[in-house]
Amino acid sequence: MWDIIPERLPLAADGRTVTDSRKVNLADYLPYLVNRVGSIIADQFGAETLAPHRLSIALWRVMAVLAANGRQRQIDLADLTSIDASTLSRIVTRLVRLNLVTRTRSATSNREVAVALSAKGSALVARLIPDAREMEAEAAAGISPEELAVVKRCLRRMYGNMKNRAAASTATRAKRVAV
Amino acid sequence: MWDIIPERLPLAADGRTVTDSRKVNLADYLPYLVNRVGSIIADQFGAETLAPHRLSIALWRVMAVLAANGRQRQIDLADLTSIDASTLSRIVTRLVRLNLVTRTRSATSNREVAVALSAKGSALVARLIPDAREMEAEAAAGISPEELAVVKRCLRRMYGNMKNRAAASTATRAKRVAV
Repeated sequence: MWDIIPERLPLAADGRTVTDSRKVNLADYLPYLVNRVGSIIADQFGAETLAPHRLSIALWRVMAVLAANGRQRQIDLADLTSIDASTLSRIVTRLVRLNLVTRTRSATSNREVAVALSAKGSALVARLIPDAREMEAEAAAGISPEELAVVKRCLRRMYGNMKNRAAASTATRAKRVAV
Repeated sequence: MWDIIPERLPLAADGRTVTDSRKVNLADYLPYLVNRVGSIIADQFGAETLAPHRLSIALWRVMAVLAANGRQRQIDLADLTSIDASTLSRIVTRLVRLNLVTRTRSATSNREVAVALSAKGSALVARLIPDAREMEAEAAAGISPEELAVVKRCLRRMYGNMKNRAAASTATRAKRVAV
């Protein structure tokens, strides 16, 4: 998912910037830049911090979300981790077998299952948090606090834009079906 | 890969901010924010633009890199796409079968294989570029050009930081082995 901003070509005789729409400059395409950073951080955190504990990045993501947000229904956990429901279900089963999380009946509905960190899971997350913070600090080295604040705010905005977009398109489809 | 900035707690009696290092605030943790944005853009671009062409996001990434950078050795293509070498090899095989890329002998070494877009592949990328640009514009809606420039510059810096970090750690390991 990326690439795609037209490459800047030398100025035309009349001074306008000429772009070739079939040429692309990945270094300026936002989804490419985002994917690159996400991949390289996940790869290094996975190899250095998680592998010695036999954890994958997906298992870690689920545990981190539970540590931050407490007990969650599986459907909410899928949303918070950006992991699709069927993959998430397999990950939770694996975490249960490792005694890192527990599946319990939801407080609000008897038919719903909620997932929470176990004591062992909480202890493991607490142990890995300093490494995770260190990794974030190394990724952001040389970036001022003000710029970092802009980056984080913009990333939250982008996520919100995409979420609203998805909701709007679902609403449009529902309306079309209703008509 | 994420989570992990200490949650801000109410001010202590002496006015300092108190943090609980075992509590985490994902909404402020950079790797979490990056992963969320990357995932939601890839999901929506995949479902709306790529699925009708029976392309996955991974196939698209390879094609986009080839469109932007021209013919590449497979090892460079792995680096440019952030896809590991063995997965990439399978993807290239699939793209060759779909007649979207070709494998040719490298110009510099007879033993090296290089990958390039076919005419059909180039035409397909050109057709999908407007959708990819539109998706980027929708993700960045409401963000000023100045802020977007900061975001892109910081993302490039973060990638560079992580790349240098990996190189430094490889160099350290090599030195240890030598000693």
